[in-house]
Amino acid sequence: MQNKYDLDTPCIIVDRVKMLENIHRYQAIANEAGITLRPHAKTHKTPQIARLQIEAGAVGVTVAKLGEAEVMADGGIRNILIAYPIVGSAKLERLIRLAQRVELTVACDSYEVAAAISEAALKAGTVINVWIEIDPGYGRVGVQPEEALLQLAQSLKPLIGIRVTGVMEFAGHSYDAQTDEARVEIAAHEAAIAARSAETLRSLGFPIETVSGGSTPVSRFASSMKGITEIRPGTYVFGDLTQVKAGALSIEQCALTVLATVISRPAPDRAVIDAGTKVFTMDGEESVIGTGRGYVVGHPDITVSWFNEEHGVLTLPPSEQGLRVGDKLEIIPVHCCAVVNMLDELHVTEDNQVQEVWPIAARGKVK
Amino acid sequence: MQNKYDLDTPCIIVDRVKMLENIHRYQAIANEAGITLRPHAKTHKTPQIARLQIEAGAVGVTVAKLGEAEVMADGGIRNILIAYPIVGSAKLERLIRLAQRVELTVACDSYEVAAAISEAALKAGTVINVWIEIDPGYGRVGVQPEEALLQLAQSLKPLIGIRVTGVMEFAGHSYDAQTDEARVEIAAHEAAIAARSAETLRSLGFPIETVSGGSTPVSRFASSMKGITEIRPGTYVFGDLTQVKAGALSIEQCALTVLATVISRPAPDRAVIDAGTKVFTMDGEESVIGTGRGYVVGHPDITVSWFNEEHGVLTLPPSEQGLRVGDKLEIIPVHCCAVVNMLDELHVTEDNQVQEVWPIAARGKVK
Repeated sequence: MQNKYDLDTPCIIVDRVKMLENIHRYQAIANEAGITLRPHAKTHKTPQIARLQIEAGAVGVTVAKLGEAEVMADGGIRNILIAYPIVGSAKLERLIRLAQRVELTVACDSYEVAAAISEAALKAGTVINVWIEIDPGYGRVGVQPEEALLQLAQSLKPLIGIRVTGVMEFAGHSYDAQTDEARVEIAAHEAAIAARSAETLRSLGFPIETVSGGSTPVSRFASSMKGITEIRPGTYVFGDLTQVKAGALSIEQCALTVLATVISRPAPDRAVIDAGTKVFTMDGEESVIGTGRGYVVGHPDITVSWFNEEHGVLTLPPSEQGLRVGDKLEIIPVHCCAVVNMLDELHVTEDNQVQEVWPIAARGKVK
Repeated sequence: MQNKYDLDTPCIIVDRVKMLENIHRYQAIANEAGITLRPHAKTHKTPQIARLQIEAGAVGVTVAKLGEAEVMADGGIRNILIAYPIVGSAKLERLIRLAQRVELTVACDSYEVAAAISEAALKAGTVINVWIEIDPGYGRVGVQPEEALLQLAQSLKPLIGIRVTGVMEFAGHSYDAQTDEARVEIAAHEAAIAARSAETLRSLGFPIETVSGGSTPVSRFASSMKGITEIRPGTYVFGDLTQVKAGALSIEQCALTVLATVISRPAPDRAVIDAGTKVFTMDGEESVIGTGRGYVVGHPDITVSWFNEEHGVLTLPPSEQGLRVGDKLEIIPVHCCAVVNMLDELHVTEDNQVQEVWPIAARGKVK
């Protein structure tokens, strides 16, 4: 076995014990609230980790794109929600093929998308499960309850190639909440909207089984989400500085780090590492704990000041100026899902030893 | 042949005629200044395009990472500068192997890096060409002229596994300049520093042949860069909104676009496309021409307002509210190099017809 500090850099390291603790902690939250957990696989993009989530009790996984769903199906996941409108003939063909081998559900927020899915399904002699995505106030996708929802629902009634079995929503504005009180309020509010939408759809005769919501920041408050039957957090599996800010995990619970090497010491107070935006991306805000665009594990006084594509510029306080070219540093990123999308493999460690290397099989699947 | 609007999305489209015009225009700038052009291949990451640059007269290519150099060598490029310090035994082994099959030069700014390269070269019975990277005031990597440079140079004298044949610098602060006057000043200043550093090294007996500088924003002013013998712009090959802001290209000269599909019309003034940060990244600033985080070709009144990983949210003026689910839009990104690193292939078009699909072979090569 290889010590993680002997790995060539930059690379992604996942602490297996911390990851498993995160998986089980969030599963317990769902279990205690009496609802199902359907983790968003965008965070890990790795079937091996999806299987660990299923083994812990998750009902299935969520993905954003059809290409991610195909990878998860290939990796043995049998229940998949594509939380994204499928548009275009090439994707519809793939959707129908995929629906023939897994239990598949797809979100949609318009008649155009639903009608095209229905038509493709009819042609293939099948029926596709569809969840209506409503907008709980985030302003991204999702039909507006109630008036526009009612109108959409009426238009879907004649479509016999789809079966509307759920309502889903994503309250991305939960990331802006500054206090747990505000997060609880958003959680309760998004749940109330989704539950009411589900009632509206049921009153029109749709067999709504699932009311799905939640993000990592609000999932802790699942018991306040009255009417929700399922949560879909993603980032909880690894954690990152954005989630630390949101109070969802502590720095110590973050399971994913980037290992980087100091490649230049051009000034006493400056070190440059071999990882920039091509690893960390420019996603998200600076760390709230004053460490800039990352947190150097074991060196909380170093600031990750700025990135170029291949350079990470660190600012060193006097106590850290012994850092030398060749030294390796482990850094918790601002947004772990984005980091996972940049590289091709994860190094899974236990007690600092590399136990497995998993390909990030769904990396870059934007179609 | 396929019309580009029939492509599945999101995908990257490169207009071959515009790209070739950019390649020849910048080659002409170098030719007129009587210096060589060594394009930075990080922008395209594609050997086919590097070969077009070489055919147009480029002396070789620049890359940031060893992995990119290996891809370029595999793609038939014979003269490669790795403008990055190589650190660690795994990379040193690869460096030595690569030097045996192409004309290779590597940048360094410290004794530690140079000594390790020298040792590896000696062990292999070879000599590696090294260029000293100096800092022209950007504050990233690079040794400070003159005092630290002199000290570094003295320390390198005994190293017989390396041959110091050049000086290089990168004035990234040229991107902050707001006027051509300011850009000319930075260009002249970085050149003067590099030329003086070259003289210093020559006076110590180093056979300095190349004085290499320049970025896309300053390369237009190559004739003002007295003492420089080579420029290394990268982004000029495609252009993007950052370069439009820097006055380096016009919107019409931008050769790279992202083709995306409208997947939701949740409100009259809002459309959502199937490309977010997993295609566009969060690099760079908003467009200076008031179009947000992108420029929708043919629809200058649409604002690319914000991205999530898989969603691009557009704000539509009344004149654009006829946009429908399924419509495709071509968008010029803020930072093209970053976009190229996100996907696996480029679609090369002429007169809107897809002529070739080139793998982005050096995508994600961070090691």
